[in-house]
Amino acid sequence: MSIVVAISPSSFADGDDTPRRLLEEASVQIKENPYGRRLTEAEIIEHLEGVDGLLAGLEPLNRKVIASAAPRLKAIARVGIGVTNVDFEAAEEFGVKVSNTPDAPVTAVAELTLCALLALCRRLVPTNAGMHAGEWPKAIGFGLSRAKVLLIGYGRIGQRVGALLRAFGAELLVYDPCLDSGTLQHAERLRTLAEGLPQADIISLHANGEDTILEADAFEMMRDGVILLNSARGALVDEDALVAALDSGKVAGAWFDAFWEEPYQGRLTQYEQVLLTPHVGTYTYQCRRDMETVAVRHLLRDLGL
Amino acid sequence: MSIVVAISPSSFADGDDTPRRLLEEASVQIKENPYGRRLTEAEIIEHLEGVDGLLAGLEPLNRKVIASAAPRLKAIARVGIGVTNVDFEAAEEFGVKVSNTPDAPVTAVAELTLCALLALCRRLVPTNAGMHAGEWPKAIGFGLSRAKVLLIGYGRIGQRVGALLRAFGAELLVYDPCLDSGTLQHAERLRTLAEGLPQADIISLHANGEDTILEADAFEMMRDGVILLNSARGALVDEDALVAALDSGKVAGAWFDAFWEEPYQGRLTQYEQVLLTPHVGTYTYQCRRDMETVAVRHLLRDLGL
Repeated sequence: MSIVVAISPSSFADGDDTPRRLLEEASVQIKENPYGRRLTEAEIIEHLEGVDGLLAGLEPLNRKVIASAAPRLKAIARVGIGVTNVDFEAAEEFGVKVSNTPDAPVTAVAELTLCALLALCRRLVPTNAGMHAGEWPKAIGFGLSRAKVLLIGYGRIGQRVGALLRAFGAELLVYDPCLDSGTLQHAERLRTLAEGLPQADIISLHANGEDTILEADAFEMMRDGVILLNSARGALVDEDALVAALDSGKVAGAWFDAFWEEPYQGRLTQYEQVLLTPHVGTYTYQCRRDMETVAVRHLLRDLGL
Repeated sequence: MSIVVAISPSSFADGDDTPRRLLEEASVQIKENPYGRRLTEAEIIEHLEGVDGLLAGLEPLNRKVIASAAPRLKAIARVGIGVTNVDFEAAEEFGVKVSNTPDAPVTAVAELTLCALLALCRRLVPTNAGMHAGEWPKAIGFGLSRAKVLLIGYGRIGQRVGALLRAFGAELLVYDPCLDSGTLQHAERLRTLAEGLPQADIISLHANGEDTILEADAFEMMRDGVILLNSARGALVDEDALVAALDSGKVAGAWFDAFWEEPYQGRLTQYEQVLLTPHVGTYTYQCRRDMETVAVRHLLRDLGL
């Protein structure tokens, strides 16, 4: 009986076939994602029938899913950093090994964060649209030098975003309750969020977990005209509070790459001053290849191949 | 008789009134640009009637203009770096002092260059438009790490762009026939353009002067799918050759902030893969204030105030 590997990320090996070749060289049978999008609980349960290993996206890998796939399922290799969709207790109980690729996505996510921030600061989208419509829409933008940026979460990605922002001359404030000492050299560490929110020109979310960090009271504390960046998780921000802050002008511009549900077609699509990207932080040729290759190696190792 | 200062940049002191206050404190009489755009030769001749000092943009300040404004005109202070619009010989002959602000714009222009480059690499404009239209347009983009970037011109702005690109992990190639030794630490210097064009994933123009650098034969030498950035001068690129390279796919994406004539409404507005901004490289609050303040100080000094 041949070893079967299910693929769940919808764009696996789109840009480069190195990771797929690694699977083929290991002579495993490949089961593709038939939907071309993130799988629901019912769909992933069906997708895992007769499967030994999973290359995983962000679909729900809860106790019910893992229990139904066991005992044949032996390993889950997450293509990416986040593993909040995986029930680790259930995985351990059913003998399923779990891995992720924490280093590969850092550069690509940090680059997209700077991309969105600079575009918001310089009004790139409306200015470019005006030019293509035959206008000459000169307007003053914001520079990053001496701008105060609050980083909420200072893990691998937060630190990389911070390093890039320093190259642009920004001043960094950091809030991260889990911060280990020694990682902060060039940024001011804050003990509470309330210290940082009123000072920041720009706020960028790089926290893990699913707890809401920015609710209505947090928006109250922010400067008028603040820019908010979210490459991490939609759930970190209360959508109603954000919409109210956009309506009042408290938030002058925002960028979201992660949403409350995906694909997202919600209220933020109505706001021209909100840049939206479809969870493509890790979507560069360089990053996808690195991440998928590392995940395949983890999976083959955990399957004893 | 009071000292009269004419202002020619159409957006002077739009973002911050510090430079205008400096003029008022010196008790000079201010003559505004009545057209709200760059002045023609005939308009600047009229604008300079009865004027002692000019805060200058990029309008033609040739022999005819300077001769007609002399002997009353004593000083021209360019708000910006470029002075190719000024006839220095005529200025010296008619006793007109000329100054510029070479350092102030560097940061803002470099920031906008990175902004446009990242937006092109990650398809920000079409992706954001798709999201606002209710789509979920996931697509793979390019990263900057290990990308090869050819900088044509390595003066103040080219060096600053290079420093930012290095922070993103790009590899730099530099072509600049005027380069003095000692400025190149982290980039490979090329003796000819023909060495660099076939190697570059990205080409960014930061040269002075009005000579055309990229003509049809230069485009022939480039990689298929190259990205071209021009924050310097429209005339550095042959427009016909660029349009042909866009049509053939040789150039996959481009950004222009400077044009052959301005306001620009030419053929590039027809290409979605070309980002266009209306000569706003220096248009940040921080930069405009710094540049205008320095130009006013130069002008007041040269007028003996």
